[in-house]
Amino acid sequence: MRELDLPDLDDLARGAALLGSGGGGDPYIGTLLARAAITRHGPVRVVTVEELPPDALVVPVSMLGAPTVGVEKLPSGKEVHAALRALERVLGRAATHLVAIEIGGGNSMVPVAAAAETGLPLLDADAMGRAFPEAQMVLPTLSGISTTPMTVADDKGNTAVIDAVSNHWAERIARAICGEAGCSVYTADTVLTAAQARDTLVLGTLTLAQRAGATIRLARAGHADPVRAVTDLLGGAVLAAGKVVDVSRATTGGFARGEAVVHGPDGTLVLSFQNEHLVARLADRVVATTPDLICVVDTETGEPVTTEALRYGFRVTVLGLPCDPRWTSPEGLALVGPPAFGYDCGYRPLPS
Amino acid sequence: MRELDLPDLDDLARGAALLGSGGGGDPYIGTLLARAAITRHGPVRVVTVEELPPDALVVPVSMLGAPTVGVEKLPSGKEVHAALRALERVLGRAATHLVAIEIGGGNSMVPVAAAAETGLPLLDADAMGRAFPEAQMVLPTLSGISTTPMTVADDKGNTAVIDAVSNHWAERIARAICGEAGCSVYTADTVLTAAQARDTLVLGTLTLAQRAGATIRLARAGHADPVRAVTDLLGGAVLAAGKVVDVSRATTGGFARGEAVVHGPDGTLVLSFQNEHLVARLADRVVATTPDLICVVDTETGEPVTTEALRYGFRVTVLGLPCDPRWTSPEGLALVGPPAFGYDCGYRPLPS
Repeated sequence: MRELDLPDLDDLARGAALLGSGGGGDPYIGTLLARAAITRHGPVRVVTVEELPPDALVVPVSMLGAPTVGVEKLPSGKEVHAALRALERVLGRAATHLVAIEIGGGNSMVPVAAAAETGLPLLDADAMGRAFPEAQMVLPTLSGISTTPMTVADDKGNTAVIDAVSNHWAERIARAICGEAGCSVYTADTVLTAAQARDTLVLGTLTLAQRAGATIRLARAGHADPVRAVTDLLGGAVLAAGKVVDVSRATTGGFARGEAVVHGPDGTLVLSFQNEHLVARLADRVVATTPDLICVVDTETGEPVTTEALRYGFRVTVLGLPCDPRWTSPEGLALVGPPAFGYDCGYRPLPS
Repeated sequence: MRELDLPDLDDLARGAALLGSGGGGDPYIGTLLARAAITRHGPVRVVTVEELPPDALVVPVSMLGAPTVGVEKLPSGKEVHAALRALERVLGRAATHLVAIEIGGGNSMVPVAAAAETGLPLLDADAMGRAFPEAQMVLPTLSGISTTPMTVADDKGNTAVIDAVSNHWAERIARAICGEAGCSVYTADTVLTAAQARDTLVLGTLTLAQRAGATIRLARAGHADPVRAVTDLLGGAVLAAGKVVDVSRATTGGFARGEAVVHGPDGTLVLSFQNEHLVARLADRVVATTPDLICVVDTETGEPVTTEALRYGFRVTVLGLPCDPRWTSPEGLALVGPPAFGYDCGYRPLPS
């Protein structure tokens, strides 16, 4: 058990935004939520999976929606609570631990805020080892664990409890509600026992994100290269560097979809995203694809750049980081490989 | 208490389709459901509001969606059961009586089928005294009764429980799910006590619909004018008669919206509909509007024509029937008057 307190939040948010592969919601709004909650209620207890009692009830809580909307439509702070309470009513049991559904800007901070408010310990793990845009795109799906019962809560006070025949249908129904409710709702879903948490989550990612964020900060403070420092820490590869010369995006179907073009000495890199960066093409050749992490950072400061923050003129470095190995199984690739997002390329392992 | 049995179904469906003001879903598919259920389980007990015990739990069950889709996408028959069971789980109490949310083609028959399957008695009443396209457009809304908890079940086996801050939000969320699930779902909502049922429903409408259907049938059998017979029975007025020369419709936002043009000796009548007929203009003058009933029947046979069945070449008579007087209160008109559907005219009482 360790404590997560106010001074930790910026490092966590920075590192999570990096590992989120450009997605997972805005880190700064998530940080505001977490900061307000910790200020009111005190630090959050972070536990490892080994510390879970056998009868633990681990509940992932998260924001669902288009990040482009999330940065403009602030949560009231009550949504995640409402989603959690609605889920507990359905289960007839209280959550014992919270966990992040994904490591990504905002969605790493949402459970921190909820943990501070509820006093529940937060598990040092997440269900993706990165961020993905859809509710069924979690490792527990590969183990047959149901997304539902899933609860959805909006900023107005509406809630819905979904019971779906498949995890994909849970996503479809939640996304439909999300769209109607203004493209930004909060959810609790994919309830896990202690054993399921141990077997299906990516462990230690909260701590890893915090370390990555600290590494960037410390390198900068020591006048070292923050991009190299964090790439070395995470075992990644630089795919390209250059200047963002074009970004096209549209908020469609509850997602932020688009492409960004980076001009650099190695040629033109095109990033295709759907909330997260999913495919990178350098000089028309695919160099990285989902489920590996494609991370965009400011070349000078090392600060991660989320898909919704990407702008013309940014000088960025694009990193490739290997995903959790379970994602590159045939079942994993069927769920989150490029074709699952409508891209016509297959999975391409990162250059080694 | 009386029994509703197989020979009653055609009259009920015909009369309900008439009173539904062109909407409420396809009467023939509803009849198929009811016929199958009664054949398997025996006749349905129909009770009056006076027969309700004080501790009754009256649950309206219905189809929600676009009638244009409803005629092509048949229900599995399990949806309404799933919606009812999900609602009972949330309430922690079993329904004691079922009731129609609206009098309209299919939605008068859905509770008949559900009553036969569950063995629950069916209350002789409905929540509109006609059909309207949206969930909040019921008389209980005028008395502050909540639509939620509302359950939605689709043909695939998905269910959702909605808890909304207003009846309008319940409709919006249910409609979003409906659209995603294929524009045809089944719902249970607007739960009523015995006292609420007595005070807020339109009483006797199941029996009235059956009588209207029988009147049309008997007039035809006796070579009398079925249109005049049913108009006299219901105290309505003939607005116009003629030939349908144009129908434009689109299935948008989960509704069947459009206009129909009827040419006749009295001039051109334009019917504007959104699942139900809502505004009638004769020679550009508004002659009838929601919430009064605008009913289209085959001029020769007296058979009601639903909005989704309306076709070029049909010879029709358009009737206006007065709505329940509670609908023409200021609150009623705010909820279901022409502006509530986006039409720019005010309510115009029927010619007397």
